[in-house]
Amino acid sequence: MKKIILIPDSFKGTLSSHTVCGVMAAEIKKQFPNAQIVSIPVADGGEGSVDCFLEAVGGVKKNATVRGVFGEEMQGFYGLLTDGKTAVIEMACCAGLPLAEGRLNPLASTTYGVGQLALAAAAEGVDHIILGLGGSATNDGGCGMAAACGIRFTDSDGMSFVPTGGSLERIAHIDASGLSESLKGIKLTAMCDIDNPMYGENGAAYIFGPQKGADAAMVRRLDAGLRHLNEIIMQDLGKDLSTLPGGGAAGAMGAGVHAFLGAQLLMGIEVVLDTVGFDTHLKGADLVFTGEGKIDGQSLRGKVVIGVARRAAAQGVPVAAVVGSIAEGSEQAYAQGVSAIFSINTTAMDFEKSKAFSERNLAITMENITRFVKAITAR
Amino acid sequence: MKKIILIPDSFKGTLSSHTVCGVMAAEIKKQFPNAQIVSIPVADGGEGSVDCFLEAVGGVKKNATVRGVFGEEMQGFYGLLTDGKTAVIEMACCAGLPLAEGRLNPLASTTYGVGQLALAAAAEGVDHIILGLGGSATNDGGCGMAAACGIRFTDSDGMSFVPTGGSLERIAHIDASGLSESLKGIKLTAMCDIDNPMYGENGAAYIFGPQKGADAAMVRRLDAGLRHLNEIIMQDLGKDLSTLPGGGAAGAMGAGVHAFLGAQLLMGIEVVLDTVGFDTHLKGADLVFTGEGKIDGQSLRGKVVIGVARRAAAQGVPVAAVVGSIAEGSEQAYAQGVSAIFSINTTAMDFEKSKAFSERNLAITMENITRFVKAITAR
Repeated sequence: MKKIILIPDSFKGTLSSHTVCGVMAAEIKKQFPNAQIVSIPVADGGEGSVDCFLEAVGGVKKNATVRGVFGEEMQGFYGLLTDGKTAVIEMACCAGLPLAEGRLNPLASTTYGVGQLALAAAAEGVDHIILGLGGSATNDGGCGMAAACGIRFTDSDGMSFVPTGGSLERIAHIDASGLSESLKGIKLTAMCDIDNPMYGENGAAYIFGPQKGADAAMVRRLDAGLRHLNEIIMQDLGKDLSTLPGGGAAGAMGAGVHAFLGAQLLMGIEVVLDTVGFDTHLKGADLVFTGEGKIDGQSLRGKVVIGVARRAAAQGVPVAAVVGSIAEGSEQAYAQGVSAIFSINTTAMDFEKSKAFSERNLAITMENITRFVKAITAR
Repeated sequence: MKKIILIPDSFKGTLSSHTVCGVMAAEIKKQFPNAQIVSIPVADGGEGSVDCFLEAVGGVKKNATVRGVFGEEMQGFYGLLTDGKTAVIEMACCAGLPLAEGRLNPLASTTYGVGQLALAAAAEGVDHIILGLGGSATNDGGCGMAAACGIRFTDSDGMSFVPTGGSLERIAHIDASGLSESLKGIKLTAMCDIDNPMYGENGAAYIFGPQKGADAAMVRRLDAGLRHLNEIIMQDLGKDLSTLPGGGAAGAMGAGVHAFLGAQLLMGIEVVLDTVGFDTHLKGADLVFTGEGKIDGQSLRGKVVIGVARRAAAQGVPVAAVVGSIAEGSEQAYAQGVSAIFSINTTAMDFEKSKAFSERNLAITMENITRFVKAITAR
């Protein structure tokens, strides 16, 4: 083993991908002290995404004063990657659920700060902005962000305003002519792991509204607002977002960032793999370790393990997936390039008890896998 | 992978070693259809030991009419291994706990049938008898077996009798001169995995009497009987068994089989390894799979996994231990030759629930290990 790549997702509810990488690396070093270890902790676009990118490819974290989830001034941040040409923004940093804790209100919350972060990043001279959707407390269809970037929303009286979830229904016109020049020519990529449409029974409001504090009546109002927003976008921008997969991500930020800023919505793991140069890392690699909390037969789309495995398989590099749980249907992963799946459950114990031992159990599992690799390959 | 050896213990309470071998072999064949697979299911000397030996080395199972645990006639059996020179007896077949279920009485139970089986095996012309101690319902110090083989026990009136746990105290003399000629020259090996002495607070009666139905008063009586038996053995046979490790095995059958028939007490796994020619099997082997219900830091003595690993390590063959539970102290196994330990717990689940899935979970675990071996060694 000369070169080993670590590229795990987080284990939801127990271990961050950063921690998983650390434990994996420590165990590998015990058995293969001279191996080159490439650590690429993955985040799905939500909280921690900027740190993950910075850890994987290097760069600096920059601060910027922006408006928070309810319009108050706060310190936001973005990552300027080591190439100086790519910025990473996680919208959760100024529009995230933790910021709204105790005062959840998707009628009033805004993505305005996200637009400010995009402008700040653009001012660095980047040519690519990666925007992590995820963990948002908003349902404004990205109108706040768009407004911050110079797009004008006016009501039936011609009065300009910054729409939020509760005032989407008041939008009469959208004027995109004022979009900041600084954003033009910059490629924008949104990390988005869900397929939900902008509105409707599988849309942003119905599926994600409740966790943002919406009751049934509010869900209906938010959904109607997004439907109305799409009509105005069709009328004034000539785009129909109603069937855009992922349009419903992050309170329809997916739809907004596509319509207003021309962003492409991509699976988070694909964005990570491209950005970190995963295909290049794979050259000369002997083994890839990936992992996640649970592997099962649910949609393979957007799964970190699957995205990693497909590319590794294309170059013939074995992939070991280390997971919290091997569930029904996990065998579908083999055809995608996963060589083997190992669970970290060292003994029979309910999750309520075992979760406290996750880090230790991961270490034990990694120790045994790496010892095994050493024994098998030494022959 | 050209040659793989399977030599697991049973997973106590869930899977027999025969089942474990079957699941392991099936999964290995899927990944390595041309590999030679050597299956050696291990039993500890208790129920199933004869079948395990027959499966591992071949041979025939022979029946013999003998006396059962309370003296009644019954069909016992022994294994005549393929060399025609080795017989295997499991004392549980005619003196075991299941036979006494519902009528447990270590004062009255006898090992007489075991002696009859030894004579039957001797009549086949064997030169080696392996006797599995384990799972017994008796506490007669092997006197029943000895009596069946021609040794005479007399009371203070000179009356001959067959002592049981409750009448050991009546033995006044032992006359070994009548020992069956057919047994002379036959090597006798007892499989014994415990160190407990014949009597005393760590002896047969105190430690194992209760599970055979003895209350506190009965335990004291059984213990006193065994202590008395040792005094008579010292007096008439000139041997002191009081400190013999394992003398307390199987109701002091360990002491009796040593004193009356000259048996050597050996760890079960060592007897298995010698009998199946494990060192010869190891030649050319690429990998050994062993396993047990739980691996921990308890005494490494007598453990199947450890016994297997020591010999495999001596020949440089990697050993994967597949277990139900990786417990505290398991890391001590590495120094003994275990390359890696894999638990079969595919998800976080209490044993009460997960035990129903043991066979499936073992299969999943073996599938992933073998897929991993294939991926790693293909490079």
